[in-house]
Amino acid sequence: MSISAIHPVILCGGSGTRLWPRSRVSKPKPFLPLVGDGTLFEATLGRCPPSAGFAGPIVVTGAVHLAHVEAQWPAGVGGEVIVEPAARNTAAAIALAALRLPEDAVMLVCPSDHHIADSDAFQTAARAAAQLAAQDWLVSFGIEATSPETGFGYLQRGEAIGGLGFKVARFVEKPDLDRAKAFLADGGYAWNGGIFAFRVGTFLAELTAHRPAIAAQARLAVERGRAEGMRFHPDAAAFAAIDSESVDYAVMENTAKAAMVQAAMGWSDIGNWDALLTARPRDGSGNSLSGRADLIDCCNVLVESDGPRVSAIGLEDVVIVVDGDDVLVTTRAGAQLVGKLPGAVNQ
Amino acid sequence: MSISAIHPVILCGGSGTRLWPRSRVSKPKPFLPLVGDGTLFEATLGRCPPSAGFAGPIVVTGAVHLAHVEAQWPAGVGGEVIVEPAARNTAAAIALAALRLPEDAVMLVCPSDHHIADSDAFQTAARAAAQLAAQDWLVSFGIEATSPETGFGYLQRGEAIGGLGFKVARFVEKPDLDRAKAFLADGGYAWNGGIFAFRVGTFLAELTAHRPAIAAQARLAVERGRAEGMRFHPDAAAFAAIDSESVDYAVMENTAKAAMVQAAMGWSDIGNWDALLTARPRDGSGNSLSGRADLIDCCNVLVESDGPRVSAIGLEDVVIVVDGDDVLVTTRAGAQLVGKLPGAVNQ
Repeated sequence: MSISAIHPVILCGGSGTRLWPRSRVSKPKPFLPLVGDGTLFEATLGRCPPSAGFAGPIVVTGAVHLAHVEAQWPAGVGGEVIVEPAARNTAAAIALAALRLPEDAVMLVCPSDHHIADSDAFQTAARAAAQLAAQDWLVSFGIEATSPETGFGYLQRGEAIGGLGFKVARFVEKPDLDRAKAFLADGGYAWNGGIFAFRVGTFLAELTAHRPAIAAQARLAVERGRAEGMRFHPDAAAFAAIDSESVDYAVMENTAKAAMVQAAMGWSDIGNWDALLTARPRDGSGNSLSGRADLIDCCNVLVESDGPRVSAIGLEDVVIVVDGDDVLVTTRAGAQLVGKLPGAVNQ
Repeated sequence: MSISAIHPVILCGGSGTRLWPRSRVSKPKPFLPLVGDGTLFEATLGRCPPSAGFAGPIVVTGAVHLAHVEAQWPAGVGGEVIVEPAARNTAAAIALAALRLPEDAVMLVCPSDHHIADSDAFQTAARAAAQLAAQDWLVSFGIEATSPETGFGYLQRGEAIGGLGFKVARFVEKPDLDRAKAFLADGGYAWNGGIFAFRVGTFLAELTAHRPAIAAQARLAVERGRAEGMRFHPDAAAFAAIDSESVDYAVMENTAKAAMVQAAMGWSDIGNWDALLTARPRDGSGNSLSGRADLIDCCNVLVESDGPRVSAIGLEDVVIVVDGDDVLVTTRAGAQLVGKLPGAVNQ
């Protein structure tokens, strides 16, 4: 079965606390060059090129991030930026994008703050997901689970669908460590990475069935919205009235059409500094240095400096970040507490 | 036996590598507020007040540090600054000061980069040392050894001299760890802290006996020197010709008049960041913070920042220093390697 171009829908936002002080409310994770040369947002766009069958992207972002989005938008790509007047979670954001596309278009919803090492694997999974979506499945990417993570939701694999993917037997909220270990051992569970393929008409019908108010308000916000060059501004009053819900909770956990494709593509949500060190290329001592750094007797150390020289001695499994007027030094294990620091909380 | 005022001779210099990046060649340790509110230089002057029988100080320093010395000189104290045109170690520096004082004056030679917690104990030891010096002994302060340090020279205690102190039985160069442990267990050894009391005439006679060239050149440098307000400039050519030797090596280890007083006064040479953390007041978790700092789950952590906020999580026995365009993060054990960092070497 042949399908037309896949429409990338890139969700762009974030609070900027878990990778503080490099990531800030004013410049969150998607817009930072954390792995490789480009930013995560640029890498997300780059994984969906016309040459691989992708249409111009629709980016959904907040007004506060619009400048970053437009500054990092590659020339000649086309597409549209939907500027949310407020944050209303993923169900509303995806609904806005769906309502700007033809009914029969297949959209591929991608967060822009993840790292994917293997673009080919991503595109292969995207094509399979798009084929299932064209058959009216609502398709999640099931990310191959490689460790017993307690910070992610899981998808339990159900029966196969024509060699392309599987039905989702069950959505599981973030488990405790024992359950996460059991899922990993079982092999029939995958991480829910927040990447989805939908046929526009199918998604809107299911949204209307399970969350009629969200669907109606989103429709109103788009009908009353206005285009301005490549920007589209939904009506602020109509959008503000939308309930804030995740697409998982509003649609995926309720629909009978939930499917999944399996993706082993070197995925990381870069959920904290420890995860970033894991995702990055490292030297023979396990260190990863960005900016000026001199290390003596260090291993598994991440240095990220926006200017000042960092000199380190004798450290193991430590993260050092210098950004503007802030210096963060944390153990890798402590990285999950970064969001609780006064500097991250009181931005 | 009563004596007249003690003349403090304060030696001020240093290379600024072991406490880099806070201490720099351009602003070494004496001029930094490392423990308490004042700088080490200010604290050194403050330990020798007129009220405790001290005359106005003679400070010997290099031209490069003159601005710091004069900026930190307390009002109304009087005294003299001898400006060395080059660094020629302690024998020459002390000779210059001696030659600016009367023959019968008693001088108390003090490094300005040490911390002394107990000023009363210092003054008590100084008075005993001055009485011995007035009797023509060349007196070293024997600092109570509290750990098997391998970075200091040691003094072995000899026979008592009239209840004031002891002859020095032997000078011991920096020992290895086994010998240092043996000295500590023996109890008859003290650290050589580089604090001395001399009668001027006795010192100059012994210097002339053991290092006639140094004595002659220093005399020439002073005779041909010039006073300028409270500054005294030795003749540059004469001074440049002086051999660079420590007073220990040139005089103390050769004289038959070596004596010592015992001093238990909370002394530290603050030889590295680890020693500074030990010398500083600390909170209940053993942390010592100077500048803006937010800590979570840290113990025995030193933070020293000249401006930027330091946020730290999960660290134990770690030193974090922010100074200008440099950030240092080292384990306490690694602190002894700070001088080998490119930043410290290539100042």
